[in-house]
Parts: sequence; structure tokens; C-alpha cells
Amino acid sequence: MGGWTCPCAGSLEGAMQRFYIGGYAQQIRRTPLAAPDTNNDPSIFSPRTSIEQVEEGDVLAPKFGADGLIPVVTTDAKSGEVLMHGYMNEEALRRTMETGQAHYYSRSRQALWHKGASSGLFQHLVEMRIDDDQDAVWLAVRVDGGASCHVGYRSCFYRTVPFGKPGPVKLTFTESEKVFDPKEVYGDAPNPTKL
Amino acid sequence: MGGWTCPCAGSLEGAMQRFYIGGYAQQIRRTPLAAPDTNNDPSIFSPRTSIEQVEEGDVLAPKFGADGLIPVVTTDAKSGEVLMHGYMNEEALRRTMETGQAHYYSRSRQALWHKGASSGLFQHLVEMRIDDDQDAVWLAVRVDGGASCHVGYRSCFYRTVPFGKPGPVKLTFTESEKVFDPKEVYGDAPNPTKL
Repeated sequence: MGGWTCPCAGSLEGAMQRFYIGGYAQQIRRTPLAAPDTNNDPSIFSPRTSIEQVEEGDVLAPKFGADGLIPVVTTDAKSGEVLMHGYMNEEALRRTMETGQAHYYSRSRQALWHKGASSGLFQHLVEMRIDDDQDAVWLAVRVDGGASCHVGYRSCFYRTVPFGKPGPVKLTFTESEKVFDPKEVYGDAPNPTKL
Repeated sequence: MGGWTCPCAGSLEGAMQRFYIGGYAQQIRRTPLAAPDTNNDPSIFSPRTSIEQVEEGDVLAPKFGADGLIPVVTTDAKSGEVLMHGYMNEEALRRTMETGQAHYYSRSRQALWHKGASSGLFQHLVEMRIDDDQDAVWLAVRVDGGASCHVGYRSCFYRTVPFGKPGPVKLTFTESEKVFDPKEVYGDAPNPTKL
């Protein structure tokens, strides 16, 4: 008889690849989290009680915006290059701190986003910082596969903007080749870029 | 008779120092702009016509949020350290491109903000980049005075956040000394940090 294979297996795998919003399910499948889910642990974030506490204190009292999000800057820990600018909700920040892997909140998909769950390009934290008024986060990371941009480039910031001179504004590409082919990695998943 | 001095001069100077919202007036006084004001020149920004144009094109088609702002990451061009996270409105982006000095939009003061106008800590652009979907800007800068944070530190991100281990979350300071005394530089101007 040989090994039995569910006839749905191939299409299920394909469906999971395409099920972009379900990236988190893939993450559980591919990389089970070692840390416990302390999602409901209130002790991680402190209430904001004074400007001195927020600016000069040693407690984490992040300020999430009216949309529930805090902006995040992610740089390459080795080169210092800015790789991307994203956002976290409370859960994404908790999971990032618990697992040491970058989690964001995808505004286009309106879902928790474990970076790398779809692409394999996980971001491993080397250092995490918060700014003076605790309304922005900086992650210095090491990236699996060496790329962070869904377009296929190493950094999302692959174009320079001219300044200080008159004339037409023409962007210049800083990366001549893509690290990966987005179609191969993401298939027909919806492009997160919105007009 | 000797030189005549307006009796209001001292207090006027003091008033200008305190007139934090009027930082731009100080900027004009201290560092006249070389470039013409092309504030109303529509050719700098292009309309967003397609995802391909936005991601793979060479035209600048920035996306300002519903609040009219685009987030900005500012790094030290030499060290790669993230100095601050801010925002620009259209005018701030135009002026930054025209002058080669960082201009932001202060959300706390709801005003155009020429960084350094109050403190003298101007940020001179070395490189400017825009990200894949053109909804975030990266400035690599050289900073007069070597500090960018209103609290007095070199970087606004002067505290690390622990991750990947259980236990209380205690921030660690990465800078042991302030570069300047905020009280000396800003006087009694309102603190931009909001709870």
C-alpha cells in the first residue's frame, strides 16, 4: 500500500502559503515559540505617571497611539542600515519581548505579523531600545536570509531622495539587485502597499 | 549720547527664547535659508498612480497619513545610531529637501519645527531615503553639538529594553552623561513629552 497521502495535502499547503493573513498560523507551524504566552501579564507595561518617570525612569511605559499602535524602527545590527519602519500593537510588543523575534502589527492586513512567518526572513533581536517619551521603539536585528523588504531588497529604504539643489526630484536606487524574487516567496498574496 | 538701546530689548530677547512655538522665527534670525521658498511648487511630489510606480519608480510620491504626517527616522550618518523618530508634514519635507537641514512637524506644539532653531543642535542631511511604499522617510545626518534629544542625551533612544527572559522589565541607560543641560538650552519652554 505504501504511505497514505491525503489527497488534499498539496492544495492545503498551497492554501496555507496563500493565506497571508494567516501568517501567524504558519509561524506556529514553522517555529514554535519557546517562551510562554504571557499575553495577559499586566506587569510588562507600567502606567505613565509623570514626565520624569517616562523620560528618566527605568520602567517600560510605552505610549500607544489612538489607533493602539507604536511606531518601530528596525536597523541591521551590523551595518546600522535602516531596514524598515513598522508598527506594533501591545500584543506585538509583548511577543517581540518574549521571543526575541520581531513581531509587528500589519496595518494593511489588520493582523499580528510575525516577520518572516511567510518569507522565512525572521528578524532576531540583538538590541531593543525605547525613546525619551516612550512612543517609539528601535530594534537592532540580525535577519535570516539578509533581506527585510517585501519588494525583495535588503532594506525597504532602497531609494535616495535628492536635496539641496533645484530641478526635478528623481529618486536613485541604492541596491542594484534584489535579494529574492517576491513572487517566489509570497506567491499571489496581496501586496501590502496601498495607494 | 552714546548708542541708544531700546529698553524692551532684553525682555524681547528673553521672550523670543521662551517663544518655543516661534522657533521658526528664530531659525530665520539665526540661519537664513539659502534656497528659495518653493513651498507652493507642486512638482516636488508626484501623485500616486500605481503600486509599481510607488515601489519601483524614481518619482517621489510620499504618502501622508490621515493626519497629514509621514514618520521620519533620523540616524547619525557616522555611527548609524538612531537619534530620533519624528514626523513631517508636506511643508517640513519640502523645507528639508530645499535646505538640507532637518525640519519636522511637532505634534505636541502643532507647528513646523526646524530642528536646532531653539537649541542650536541643527541636523545637516548627509543622505535622505524613502521606503518601498513611500510612507516613511530616513534621514542620515550630522548633528551640530552632537546631541539630538531634548532630554539632553545624544540619542532619544538612550534606554535598552530587556527581552527573551522572564522577570521584571527594567530599562538600562546606554548613556551615562547628558551632552547638555536641557534647562540651560530650553529654559522654561514647555516639555514636548505628553503623558
